[in-house]
Amino acid sequence: MAPWILLMFRSLLILLATPSSFAKFPSRYFPSSIIHPETPSLSSNTNLLYKTRYFTQILDHFNYNPQSYQTFQQRYLINDTFWGGRKSKSPIFVYTGNEGNIEWFAQNTGFMYDIAPKFKALLIFLEHRYYGKSIPYGGNRKKAYKNSKNLGYLSSTQALADYATLILDLKNNLTTMDSPVIVFGGSYGGMLAAWFRLKYPHVAIGALASSAPILQFENITSQYSFNNIITQDFKSESENCYKVIKGSWKQIEDTATSKGGLELLRKSFHICKNYISGSYLEGWLSTAFVYGSMTDYPTPSNFLAPLPAYPIKQMCKAIDNPTFGNDTFKKLYHAVNIYYNYTGDVKCFDLNDDSDPHDLGGWQWQACTEMVMPTNGNNKESIFPISRESYTAHSQYCEESYKVTPRPTWITTEFGGHDIARVLKRFGSNIIFFNGLRDPWSGGGVLKNLSKSIIALVEKEGAHHVDLRFATNEDPKWLQDVRKREINIMKDWISEYHQNLADSDT
Amino acid sequence: MAPWILLMFRSLLILLATPSSFAKFPSRYFPSSIIHPETPSLSSNTNLLYKTRYFTQILDHFNYNPQSYQTFQQRYLINDTFWGGRKSKSPIFVYTGNEGNIEWFAQNTGFMYDIAPKFKALLIFLEHRYYGKSIPYGGNRKKAYKNSKNLGYLSSTQALADYATLILDLKNNLTTMDSPVIVFGGSYGGMLAAWFRLKYPHVAIGALASSAPILQFENITSQYSFNNIITQDFKSESENCYKVIKGSWKQIEDTATSKGGLELLRKSFHICKNYISGSYLEGWLSTAFVYGSMTDYPTPSNFLAPLPAYPIKQMCKAIDNPTFGNDTFKKLYHAVNIYYNYTGDVKCFDLNDDSDPHDLGGWQWQACTEMVMPTNGNNKESIFPISRESYTAHSQYCEESYKVTPRPTWITTEFGGHDIARVLKRFGSNIIFFNGLRDPWSGGGVLKNLSKSIIALVEKEGAHHVDLRFATNEDPKWLQDVRKREINIMKDWISEYHQNLADSDT
Repeated sequence: MAPWILLMFRSLLILLATPSSFAKFPSRYFPSSIIHPETPSLSSNTNLLYKTRYFTQILDHFNYNPQSYQTFQQRYLINDTFWGGRKSKSPIFVYTGNEGNIEWFAQNTGFMYDIAPKFKALLIFLEHRYYGKSIPYGGNRKKAYKNSKNLGYLSSTQALADYATLILDLKNNLTTMDSPVIVFGGSYGGMLAAWFRLKYPHVAIGALASSAPILQFENITSQYSFNNIITQDFKSESENCYKVIKGSWKQIEDTATSKGGLELLRKSFHICKNYISGSYLEGWLSTAFVYGSMTDYPTPSNFLAPLPAYPIKQMCKAIDNPTFGNDTFKKLYHAVNIYYNYTGDVKCFDLNDDSDPHDLGGWQWQACTEMVMPTNGNNKESIFPISRESYTAHSQYCEESYKVTPRPTWITTEFGGHDIARVLKRFGSNIIFFNGLRDPWSGGGVLKNLSKSIIALVEKEGAHHVDLRFATNEDPKWLQDVRKREINIMKDWISEYHQNLADSDT
Repeated sequence: MAPWILLMFRSLLILLATPSSFAKFPSRYFPSSIIHPETPSLSSNTNLLYKTRYFTQILDHFNYNPQSYQTFQQRYLINDTFWGGRKSKSPIFVYTGNEGNIEWFAQNTGFMYDIAPKFKALLIFLEHRYYGKSIPYGGNRKKAYKNSKNLGYLSSTQALADYATLILDLKNNLTTMDSPVIVFGGSYGGMLAAWFRLKYPHVAIGALASSAPILQFENITSQYSFNNIITQDFKSESENCYKVIKGSWKQIEDTATSKGGLELLRKSFHICKNYISGSYLEGWLSTAFVYGSMTDYPTPSNFLAPLPAYPIKQMCKAIDNPTFGNDTFKKLYHAVNIYYNYTGDVKCFDLNDDSDPHDLGGWQWQACTEMVMPTNGNNKESIFPISRESYTAHSQYCEESYKVTPRPTWITTEFGGHDIARVLKRFGSNIIFFNGLRDPWSGGGVLKNLSKSIIALVEKEGAHHVDLRFATNEDPKWLQDVRKREINIMKDWISEYHQNLADSDT
């Protein structure tokens, strides 16, 4: 298995940081993918959600060498069911796609559908270059991903320029230049949405940046923050739950190195016969805790995996189950079974599964070039074993895999981040930063208002971009309220825009 | 003579648009350079003005293919004579270099030197990539300019990223991260300064953008504006002056095509024996009118050429001189002699002179890729013959010279420009746009306040970035006043910054 494939997983799914155990157990031992392939809940009726279009996009916006005049087909999804049209200058809501198949993000951003009728909004979902069907080199994924020369054009600044170019072209074609654009995004897509508003204020009047860890760079946010939030998530359910997990790592290691121990572990965790090792198992377990924390939604969901409401609570229930006595492995098995096998379909778990159903593999390249986001530290209190972020190991991996050296300071050079409160106090406007504090990424988010119109909405009980999900009847009041606030703020942006437009016409 | 050399002149000196006659007389007939090589007035004591430094800069900030990891040596000039130092968090004034040798710009931006003691400011002048000594490919200018593949990295976005990277690195090395940075620039350098503040607010707290025609793109500003302002400059001196020039073009053409006419013209205008044609002569004359308008300064100057105070007034005096009777050629000769030969050293004029003392040649590439600024239209009233901008001809030239197609909408996509008042009404802050209305570029400038802190300073009697020049004892009151206003505004930016810093420390 190529190192690339082995490490690809590190980045899987929404900016996932290397779970804590990676730092201790070299990542090359880590299973390439443990995500249970899933059927997106809405994929059966996607025809109702959007039509698919392609745009001829420029490969290199910033240089003018002959290769930059090459183009590629960028996919986007469009839904004009609710649009009020150009005469009423009705708004355009644009999702700035992140590191994966745009259909998957569209299907998990129901909020835009829920509010489109109220705003008479046109909905557009833009796919990020090098993901899904938006592949340069004639759509030839193998060629595009072949080497660093061909991958070179996969960068956040190029993606933002794609979005500006496509949006302006689309508005022009629809002769609706006066329709205001609001950009939406979650996770890396949220980072792109916020940056887009900051860099392209002439294209978007505002941005809803949900769970966008734009401060998870350099030393702006502590490297321990990510895993400390996970720790807190489990602790908040029960102290025992936290202690059992924290104590389990040594027990697994001891078992793995004892005679017959691997077979015992294999049986305890229902691992298929193909492969097992102590560190693979640890990675697999910690991934369930990381992803469980990110998607600790208050209602049943199917984003990273099919899950019940409040999965962390369910995991801790299993761990705290008195009928399991002192059997740590049984407790853990039942806990992670909630994440990996909530449907009950899986007979055994394949630690070698390297499928990538949402086509997220390109993130590893991004993490090896500009998206250097330190999240692997574990202090004494962490639910994972103590460790420190190793930039050297990361850099070495990138050299080996792509012959590329990361640029850890580039993102803060290009987009800022240091002293953000001071910088944006009197600069920029119209951004909502939503963060749910149960989301490990929230540590790198903007958690305080930066100005009158650069607003932080923070929800103690929220998880990773929970606000962007389709509304359900079971949504708790805080979630309904946060969406209402978002709607009202965006309404204000649009009225202000229309008012300015009317003023300048007269 | 290569087409590149022939056309290079079109762009010479501070964004010079093709003078009107070009549109009528194909630019390939135009002399490659008519600038009188000059000795910058301060070059003899440049040691006092700055020290020269080099920075290892990344060739391609936005892509990660192997070539992008190449570096080049970027030159910058530094003067720390007046700097208050890091302890007092004294400011850093940075000139964002434009299309030429940075020493030349430093020597013509005396305002920064004049005010540095007051602000205890560190002065930095950054050279633009591909100009002066900041040449990629190991400083090998011939190689860097060899073809579009090597020239590809010459773009405004790359230059801005250079500036961000260099400034942050410099501040880091001086351990003075808390020193506020203000960027300064004139003409294209002013565009870069304004765009830098908009794109890199985390690096610069404000920008003084002098004579920055950021609206001279697409159809935002009329293509007739540029030459109409020149027309107005001459009309404002005397109606007769305008009429003589306006009537001269036909007379020159008629003479050029009549028997012995070229020889007559050659003698009348003291052209050297090597070459003359009607359209070369017309280009040469109109260039004097264009550059004369741009540098119609109220005091003697030596920027584009050694000139007396108010050169347009002097030109019109020559034209209106009653002793010349009806001799149009004599009038014109004495008028342009003020521009080309104020020192009286020139015995005859060489229309083939293609010297480029300030190394401005790269602008032609920029004009062939992104800097498509329509300025060549002449309506009925114009002092030049009626004509329309020909994008097709421009594009054809670019194909022939560089095998490159211009991207006329790129600048507005990347930096905006349309509806700028609406876009920046509640976005961004701390920019001064200075424009002098005698400057033909002022038509593409920001002439109205966009918000409380994005300010337009407009001076009826001003010319091309006159505010940035060294103060003299003869400066008129309006010029002294405009500089005072600029100083006061920048003082406010800096106090506000220090106040915010103090607030965030407590």
